[in-house]
Amino acid sequence: MSLEERLKTLKEAEEYRHEFEANLCPTLELDRRRPFTFISVGGGELGDLAVTAAKRQLGGICGGVATVAFDVYDGFPAQDAADHTRVFNMMDGNELEKSIKEFVPDPSQPHAIYLEVEKADTLRVCRLGVKEGYRVMSTPYGPLICMDRYLTKLMFDKLKIPRVDWRYARSQLEIEEVAKDFNLPVIVKPVMTSSGHGTTIVKDVSQLEDVYEHALRHARGRGDEVIVERYLPQLATVGTEVTQIAVRHFDENKKIVTSVAPPVEHKRPGATYHESWLPANISDRAKQTCQECARRIAEYIGGLGVFALELFVVEDVVYNNEVANRPHDTGMITRWMLNMDEGAMMLFSTIGLPITPFDLKLSRSGYGVAHVVLAPSLADEGRHRVKRFDANRIRTYITRKGYDGDVWYFGKPDAYSGRRMGLAVGFDSNVGAARKIAEDIAHQAEKSIEIDDALG
Amino acid sequence: MSLEERLKTLKEAEEYRHEFEANLCPTLELDRRRPFTFISVGGGELGDLAVTAAKRQLGGICGGVATVAFDVYDGFPAQDAADHTRVFNMMDGNELEKSIKEFVPDPSQPHAIYLEVEKADTLRVCRLGVKEGYRVMSTPYGPLICMDRYLTKLMFDKLKIPRVDWRYARSQLEIEEVAKDFNLPVIVKPVMTSSGHGTTIVKDVSQLEDVYEHALRHARGRGDEVIVERYLPQLATVGTEVTQIAVRHFDENKKIVTSVAPPVEHKRPGATYHESWLPANISDRAKQTCQECARRIAEYIGGLGVFALELFVVEDVVYNNEVANRPHDTGMITRWMLNMDEGAMMLFSTIGLPITPFDLKLSRSGYGVAHVVLAPSLADEGRHRVKRFDANRIRTYITRKGYDGDVWYFGKPDAYSGRRMGLAVGFDSNVGAARKIAEDIAHQAEKSIEIDDALG
Repeated sequence: MSLEERLKTLKEAEEYRHEFEANLCPTLELDRRRPFTFISVGGGELGDLAVTAAKRQLGGICGGVATVAFDVYDGFPAQDAADHTRVFNMMDGNELEKSIKEFVPDPSQPHAIYLEVEKADTLRVCRLGVKEGYRVMSTPYGPLICMDRYLTKLMFDKLKIPRVDWRYARSQLEIEEVAKDFNLPVIVKPVMTSSGHGTTIVKDVSQLEDVYEHALRHARGRGDEVIVERYLPQLATVGTEVTQIAVRHFDENKKIVTSVAPPVEHKRPGATYHESWLPANISDRAKQTCQECARRIAEYIGGLGVFALELFVVEDVVYNNEVANRPHDTGMITRWMLNMDEGAMMLFSTIGLPITPFDLKLSRSGYGVAHVVLAPSLADEGRHRVKRFDANRIRTYITRKGYDGDVWYFGKPDAYSGRRMGLAVGFDSNVGAARKIAEDIAHQAEKSIEIDDALG
Repeated sequence: MSLEERLKTLKEAEEYRHEFEANLCPTLELDRRRPFTFISVGGGELGDLAVTAAKRQLGGICGGVATVAFDVYDGFPAQDAADHTRVFNMMDGNELEKSIKEFVPDPSQPHAIYLEVEKADTLRVCRLGVKEGYRVMSTPYGPLICMDRYLTKLMFDKLKIPRVDWRYARSQLEIEEVAKDFNLPVIVKPVMTSSGHGTTIVKDVSQLEDVYEHALRHARGRGDEVIVERYLPQLATVGTEVTQIAVRHFDENKKIVTSVAPPVEHKRPGATYHESWLPANISDRAKQTCQECARRIAEYIGGLGVFALELFVVEDVVYNNEVANRPHDTGMITRWMLNMDEGAMMLFSTIGLPITPFDLKLSRSGYGVAHVVLAPSLADEGRHRVKRFDANRIRTYITRKGYDGDVWYFGKPDAYSGRRMGLAVGFDSNVGAARKIAEDIAHQAEKSIEIDDALG
């Protein structure tokens, strides 16, 4: 997509948004005989949170909310929780459209479509929304804008939202030129991926080699585009990273409004999600800026649902980085620390129910830290079957150590090197102590997962 | 059952318990290819808590825990969450045995059977345990002892646990004689029921009329036995009621131990569950006694799983009343106030995983109060279809009032007069304020459920 095409997409999104919102209405009654259909395109841990919220809070399909989840592999986390599931390649637009229409043949029936993953034919889904009236959340254009880092940066500029310096590149040579201009370190990312796949933090010249190829290999679908970002040198010393969740929902006056959650702080040694916690240790001023930025983006894109804005915070200064038009990895800590987790927020808001101020408040005092539980480095890049998980061992460890902490095991049937298999959580009145607990439990949990040597 | 038969049952239970425990072993590994089967006999809100815990914490069937739930009506709360479900009359022992064996053909395969309701052929299930090695939790005799109020009182006496005065009666005349001896008020209950069904608090002579018939009409299955309890006059003035949860589980040394949760306080205008909260406002000494009593009972019955002891607390003095060998209505507040809810406790403990000290700690400060959301009084005693639930209305109400509170809607397809349809929760640093919030939300939620005039 060229710059002109991207600017045109933004304009279309802006115009369409009002039409889309005008057709949304709050759900006044949940009716078993005419259930609201909630489709999660992608059924990983984030989809699972939304689907199980329907069961645990609203009575599930008998309470009037039918849940549907799609994913590419058998045994995906939400598969045993959703009312209906399908396994197929969601990048195949025909398959995706057919599956959506199987559960929602008539777009005027109450439904919401949640794009949980980027690895789906987002453009096709957008068209389904715009041309046929399917309720792709937050709006049909929302996921399209947020999954394209170039489009996202254009939006930031349009909204006059502070961001890091960046350039667009389409070859190894162009990357090297930008790197010379910016000075190292720089961050190189494919224009489209999720969860940091394909991202390299280039600290010295030797790392520049193959960086374009690496990005493209991990890019979503095809595409030869990357972006190069200037690395904020103060980030490692006085800065931190924050995910700011905003949610668009119907309020008590049946108007669509934007509410913001407490910002989530997170740290990552590499490019992918590693640990996050609530509450964030940032100044009130920085917090207000984070929330204001998220609010502006949510109100620009419009519709209903969760937005998760990634920001760099250096003292009181805030730099916007990326935004997801859906719940976010780093936000999984909301499950333990807020009255409503981000999956439930996505469900409740997109099916047309109000989010209450209570939902977005902290539920417990002190710090809660979530830390990823990863599959070990395996000898090859392929998928291996998970043999067993020793839940006993990890729970015994928590008891012996006297930790305030727990593990959420996702139950994925296969692993590959570094795949996220679960989440460990630690709690303490001191954030450093809570981080240590979460990390220690995570590393023990990693040792508790037994993986086949042979490829599955 | 005669007194002699009951004493014999107690003795058998005591002897069998060691044999049963000797055959239990901790679950060291969860294996998708050979999943642990967890059967909830009864799939109401309490069964739902256990089933959804398997999905939300252990990865569900793909994580190695297959959930099965039975109930008597289509659309029961756990039906859309469990991996396998059956709808049939669980009082029919043949059907029950057949259904259990359908999912666990070989009792040596890893499994646990949770009797969530009293309306099941408990005796048949006990025999399945004793004769064929089925893992009926806590032990095959546990549910049998705890559902028979006469047997329970005999156990209290055997354990030298303080209890209220009571007598056994088999006719209206016998009840009247006891009432004369005890002086009014007295409480008349069938020997077997659950959730206070068939219980009458007889305050004046006019209420004595029909009390026997009322008890029998609500008794579980057949049976002509009732018990008459002396009413504690101080209860209404300086006393309170408490549910003390104890859980038998494998510990870090692979031994079965008993752990106790913080006591839950509750109030009921009638005989059935109405509101409960955490933490309980009782003295440390009373708390210790509650926990010690629950521990003694759990250790006497043995096995694995949750015990919920109901007690009257009058200042520092504690009177044991009843005990359930399973999670308890009043304990549903654990979902919001403890790190692990009682459903998850039942699941984790009975599948052979450790319960950690963290699990049983309070998760939030202040008070959390749960209040039942009941179906209105209907013109007849039959079942009516639920038409709609207006989740929007109740969430709008919470927002407008600025409440810290929420609603859990069970999604039951039918209602009858006074049926429990959901739970409202309120939070505040002051218990009185939290109770008012929960009650107000509950009453609004009741108005948000639309029920058919005609019988369903």
